[in-house]
Amino acid sequence: MAEENTVYIGKKETMSYVMAVVTQFNSGSNEVFIKARGRAISKAVDVAEITKNRFVPNSEIIDIKTDTEQIERTGEEGTANVSAMEITMRLTSS
Amino acid sequence: MAEENTVYIGKKETMSYVMAVVTQFNSGSNEVFIKARGRAISKAVDVAEITKNRFVPNSEIIDIKTDTEQIERTGEEGTANVSAMEITMRLTSS
Repeated sequence: MAEENTVYIGKKETMSYVMAVVTQFNSGSNEVFIKARGRAISKAVDVAEITKNRFVPNSEIIDIKTDTEQIERTGEEGTANVSAMEITMRLTSS
Repeated sequence: MAEENTVYIGKKETMSYVMAVVTQFNSGSNEVFIKARGRAISKAVDVAEITKNRFVPNSEIIDIKTDTEQIERTGEEGTANVSAMEITMRLTSS
């Protein structure tokens, strides 16, 4: 999985990430991976749905994986568990 | 898909929904559906991951679907789009 095909969802507004995904498709990628952790997961789903429904109608969500990752606690000892998600979008042949 | 096998994620704390899913499995369901919309989607992923990792080790996520639903705007005219997710969990044969 190439890094340049991957859009990481963070604190920016949803449309920034939609544009990043659209740009990936327009620059020749057949597949784009959308990755998010924690509360950004909801936004990742919005990004995929908006891309598919409004900007790249010949794209589809072909896979959604979830995982649990351990992250360092900020200013505390130990680690915390956080859910992670990876959405794979692909251009359809049509 | 039977309604009684479905856990709808709302504003309660995460562990309430984990317990609801665990209870479904313990009462004889082989499959449980976890449904969420909007910001609750992140919590739905937490519920599935915590159930699998901590409470029902012989369960797995076998499918994740997303969709866009139209909801009535509260106190405004027209509708708004909201992302929806359905996670299907199933007991493994082991």
